[in-house]
Order: sequence, then structure tokens, then C-alpha cells
Amino acid sequence: MPEEFVVTPWEVRGKVDYDRLIEQFGTQRIDAKLSERIRKHTGELHPLLKRGLYFSHRDLPWILDEYEKGNPFSLYTGRGPSSAMHLGHMIPFYFTAWLQKHFKANVWIQMTDDEKFWFRDFDTLEEATRVGYDNILDIIAAGFDPNRTRIFLDTEYIRKLYPIAVQIAKRITFSTARAVFGFDASNNLGQIFYTALQSVPCFLESIEQGRNVPCLIPCGIDQDPHFRITRDLAESLGFSKPALIHNKMMPGLKGLDSKMSSSAPDTAIFMTDSPEVAIVKIRNAFTGGRATEEEQRRLGANPDICSIFAYYTYLFAPEDRYWGDVETTCRGGQRMCGDCKMELANHVVRFLEEHKTRRERARDQIEKFVVRD
Amino acid sequence: MPEEFVVTPWEVRGKVDYDRLIEQFGTQRIDAKLSERIRKHTGELHPLLKRGLYFSHRDLPWILDEYEKGNPFSLYTGRGPSSAMHLGHMIPFYFTAWLQKHFKANVWIQMTDDEKFWFRDFDTLEEATRVGYDNILDIIAAGFDPNRTRIFLDTEYIRKLYPIAVQIAKRITFSTARAVFGFDASNNLGQIFYTALQSVPCFLESIEQGRNVPCLIPCGIDQDPHFRITRDLAESLGFSKPALIHNKMMPGLKGLDSKMSSSAPDTAIFMTDSPEVAIVKIRNAFTGGRATEEEQRRLGANPDICSIFAYYTYLFAPEDRYWGDVETTCRGGQRMCGDCKMELANHVVRFLEEHKTRRERARDQIEKFVVRD
Repeated sequence: MPEEFVVTPWEVRGKVDYDRLIEQFGTQRIDAKLSERIRKHTGELHPLLKRGLYFSHRDLPWILDEYEKGNPFSLYTGRGPSSAMHLGHMIPFYFTAWLQKHFKANVWIQMTDDEKFWFRDFDTLEEATRVGYDNILDIIAAGFDPNRTRIFLDTEYIRKLYPIAVQIAKRITFSTARAVFGFDASNNLGQIFYTALQSVPCFLESIEQGRNVPCLIPCGIDQDPHFRITRDLAESLGFSKPALIHNKMMPGLKGLDSKMSSSAPDTAIFMTDSPEVAIVKIRNAFTGGRATEEEQRRLGANPDICSIFAYYTYLFAPEDRYWGDVETTCRGGQRMCGDCKMELANHVVRFLEEHKTRRERARDQIEKFVVRD
Repeated sequence: MPEEFVVTPWEVRGKVDYDRLIEQFGTQRIDAKLSERIRKHTGELHPLLKRGLYFSHRDLPWILDEYEKGNPFSLYTGRGPSSAMHLGHMIPFYFTAWLQKHFKANVWIQMTDDEKFWFRDFDTLEEATRVGYDNILDIIAAGFDPNRTRIFLDTEYIRKLYPIAVQIAKRITFSTARAVFGFDASNNLGQIFYTALQSVPCFLESIEQGRNVPCLIPCGIDQDPHFRITRDLAESLGFSKPALIHNKMMPGLKGLDSKMSSSAPDTAIFMTDSPEVAIVKIRNAFTGGRATEEEQRRLGANPDICSIFAYYTYLFAPEDRYWGDVETTCRGGQRMCGDCKMELANHVVRFLEEHKTRRERARDQIEKFVVRD
């Protein structure tokens, strides 16, 4: 009997079976042929794509068709502000910046301060907005091109967003929202309305250019339900359905089924963690190691269940040869978990230091990115 | 058994029993003592107040308490744009302008283009906005002071409205909205969200002044449900509950229980009707007259069921002596319906001509009234 799991924009519960999720959600798998088609344009493949972490899509071949016909696409991604961003939160931004670079795409990034306030992550709206600005520093640090990127907060950019949201909201009944998101009568009016706003940014490039520009949305698979609604109504508004490319959720440090959680800081490495804190978290992480060093040398360890190895896979071994080396020496018993953790810790500390530098530099760039009207 | 009636912001059905409505809605009657208290400040009483057409309130004595303590109030009223405004639509604006003049109050007027689009009065949002601007001409023509009046369209002023609406929306569940407005799963997300926006303007003066300014809302009694919700949450946002003063719905030309309706133009006199059209409508109106002239001279007619007499009462006999004269001669059989209609038609034609002049003048004043950011 398969284990049960739940994936919604607000809750991921249980052990997620991504193959079944593709069936449940009705999305398409990214296969070797599609990856190769991307590689033809980008020269190299992003490790997250090559390693199957971007694994699912909707209408991605159409995006490439249009691109090849000389009709480039825009990118839209976003974030619900949270008090600190962790590595998992950064994944869509690294990937989107990579797509931007290779496809010369304009990027729209939505900061949903309203949503996070409605879903009770913040006591005041002002706090959600303030934290949104803090998160923007991390997002800029992911390497976006200031000439091709616009970042906005819902509450500040609402004059542009609202007239489109109004038209979207008219096309969604409570019945639909209830079916897609599981709302009931205890949900507040903001929570119910919100999906209309999350639909808007994929149309902004078309509106700005005054013609139908294809839009690709890189996002966690958990956000897919919002865009199913968007896709259903896009054409009635005169726009093409946005395409999607979905990533798997980066696991927490307590095992592959563990979640990164802001409320349990040990489960995740935050972008503002000090080297000392990051090292301790990595040292305490769950691995696929054996009970004793002797046993591990004899039988090898198991990277398939190891949080540490997952971190190499997602972000800290972009070169395939090195990544393969980590795996081989792990399985072969040449690599001890303590050493492997310290090796990862070195990468992570350097990564966080570089991020910190870029994040500080972002303070001066913020006005190049943020749009308000 | 009393006749059934329904009064909601979107539907008025059946013969409205205003005494029962006061009980149902839990509002207070405006009695002679309260009217007298107003008269002390205004010198004269507006005919609509004196004749019981402004008949109900919430917390009006508190508004006067505060005013007498040197804490003046702001006024908030509004309108859902419609292709043409009729005399009934103008009532709250005439009354609000009168209050503004006598109490030197700042006035906020909300044009709900989003609402009217969501409730399917318009096929496109642009059309709702365009018609909103057309209605603004009629509203300015009601005699507002440009130095004390701000008129805005929801879609244009949303940058100011939205952060407050977000906080309001968090405090209203679907369950509450369903109970108050009778929503079901087939309502669209905009219709459900909308009440949050209608709540905002009563707090704008307080926000602008940075202190708690009392707000009085003159509106048709059918709009009361919105503000019950607003009143329930005002204090949790740090504001006083807005007070309300309610008018009865001006009857249509087909009898006191008939409604004015834009879809049945014969039922109402529109502000843009030509004299010829207005005269024909009045000539065809329902009266309390007898079958023959002879019978009417002998028995008198009945103003209590007469649309024409209602028009005198609401707008076209502001002087009490003249109004009394119309009634007496009607009951006494000296006044024939045809003559009475022509007499009213003369008033109406002059009224519409004066309105037309003020409306044209309003075109040049529009930027003095409309705020967008």
C-alpha cells in the first residue's frame, strides 16, 4: 500500500512520491529528449535539470517552439516572505537566474506580503512587507540581471496588479477555489481571493509589450494548483496559458523525507546562518552511514537515504565528476560520514560567505530591481 | 400575515416594510428628538430628514456627541457605476452634500467599478471605470465642495485602499460573508472579497489625519449589511465604528412598491433624460387618482399610494407649505392627476436642466475632486 502524502501550496505532508504526483497533478515528465532540447540552447545543462530535480512541466515544449520561432518568453517566479530564507527557498531563484542568462528572458518576481499576512505568518502587514524587502536581498544575490528583472511586493505594486486580478477573480468561483485548495467556510476573504493575485504576473510581460508573450513559471511542484487555475482562464483573457517547470522540494537535514522548516531551524541552513551555526547543523544531519567506522569501510554507506548527499546533489557538487566521486567513495566505503560532512561544511561556509557578500552588495541595487508603479 | 420582502446590497424584492427592517437589521429609528438635535446645528432640517425618508441610523447620537465636543466627523458614501443615474441614485449625494455644508465635513466618495464588474453589470472592467467617470459628473453636480471632497475609483485608488482592505479581509471569514450576503459556492472570488474594499473608506480620514476621526455613512438601507461587518471589526483595527444614516428607497414611477430600474427606463427619471422623455414618463406614471374626473372631484384622490406625490415628497416640494398644499388639494379633490403631473413635470424639467448645466460645469472640475494616489 503506498504511503499517503499531501501536496498543496500551504502544506506538504508525508513522503512525497513524485511519480505519483505527476499523475495526480496531470503534469508531464521532463525526459532526456526535452532536456537535450534545452541543452541545445543553453550549451550546458543546469545540474538541477540534469539530475532530475527539475522533473516536471506543463507546456515546456511549446515555450521552446516559440523561442525557436523567434518569440522569446518571460519568466515569473515569486516568494511568500518569511523571516529567513533557507537553501531550499533559493532553488527556484538560482534556476530562474540561469534560465534568464541563457535565454535572455525578462523576469518578474512577486513578493506576496498580502498572502503571508492572510495565512497568519505575520501579525501585521507592515512586518510582512518589511520581511519581503529583506528576502529581496537574498533573491537579488541569486544573480539576476538588473536590466531584465522586476521585483515587486503585492501591496506596493497593486495599482498595476489589481485591474488584472479583478478580471481573473471574476472567472473563479468559490467552488473552484474550494476544490483546488481545500478551502472551507472558516477561510478568510483574503485567503480566498489571493489566487487571483498569484495569477497576474504571468501576464505582465504581455501587457507591457502589448502582445502575447509566452510565460514560463519555475516553481516548486506544490505551487502548481494556483497555476492550474491560471491556465484554465488565461485564454479567456486573451493570453496564452503560462508554461510551468517544477522542482522537487529540497529535503531537510533530518533525512530525505524531512522538511526544511523555519520553525525548526536545525532542519535547514539559512542564508544568514553564521559558519559556526551551519557547521553544527551539518554535523548533526542525518546520513546513510553505518553504525561503526569498521562496518562502513567494509559495507559502504547509502547515499540514497542521506541528507548530506542530497545537499551535494542539489547545490554543492555542480561538477558531475566530483559529484560522482562523492557517491562512489560513499558506496565504496572509502568516505566516512564525519569527513564527508566537513567537506560539505567547507562548501557551505564558502557558499554562504559569497552569498553574504552578494547580499550586502544587493542593498545598493535594490532600487534597480524593485518596481512600485 | 405580513408580506415577505428581501433587502440586500444586490437585491430589493417585495414590498419593503421599513419598520420591520429596522427590527430585522437592528438599527435605530430617527425620532423627533434626534432630528431636533441635528436641527440645532444645521438651522433648518433637510426635507428628506423632516419627512422621515432618512429614517434609521446607527450611532448617530455619538457622531453629534463628538461633534459637540469639537471632534468633527468625516462623511463616506459611494456608488456602483451604472450606465445612467436616476433621481433615486442622487438622494444620498444631495443629502451628503447638505451634511457637508452644514457640518463642514470632509467627504470621501467611493466609485466601485470593480464591484459592478464582478456583479456582471459590465462585460469589461474598462467599461465600468469609464461609466464611473460619467457618474462622477452627476455626483459633482450634487453640489460638493471641491476643497472638502475626494472621489476615487477602486481600481485607480487601490494603492491606498489595498493595504487596509488586506487587514480587513483577514478578519472576515467566508462563513460571515455567506451569512450576511447569502453567498454560495457559485459566487466568484471578487464578489466574495469585495466587502473588504467597501469597508475601507470610512477609515481614510483617520489614516490621513493620523488620529481617530468619527465617520458617518449616509446610504440606502440596503447597503447596511456591508457596514455591519465593518462595524464589527473597526475597533480591532484601532478605529471607531462608523455611524450610519439610512434612507428609504425612492419608489419607481409605477407605484410605491415599484422599483426604479435601469433595465426598465420607464420606471425612473434619469439625470440625462431629455425634457420630452421625462414628461412622457411622468404622464405615464401610476397615481392614486380615481377612475373619472367627476369621481375624483367628489371623493378626492389618494397620495398615500401615488408615485407622483412621492416625487413631490422626495425632491420636488422642498417647501413644506407647498408640499402640504399638494397633499390637501389631492385629497380634497381640487387637484386632477393630469394637472398634478404637468406641475411636477415642470419642476422636473427645470431640475434636470439645472442639473445638466452643473454636470457640464463638472467636466472642468473633475480633477479637483478625483484622487488616484
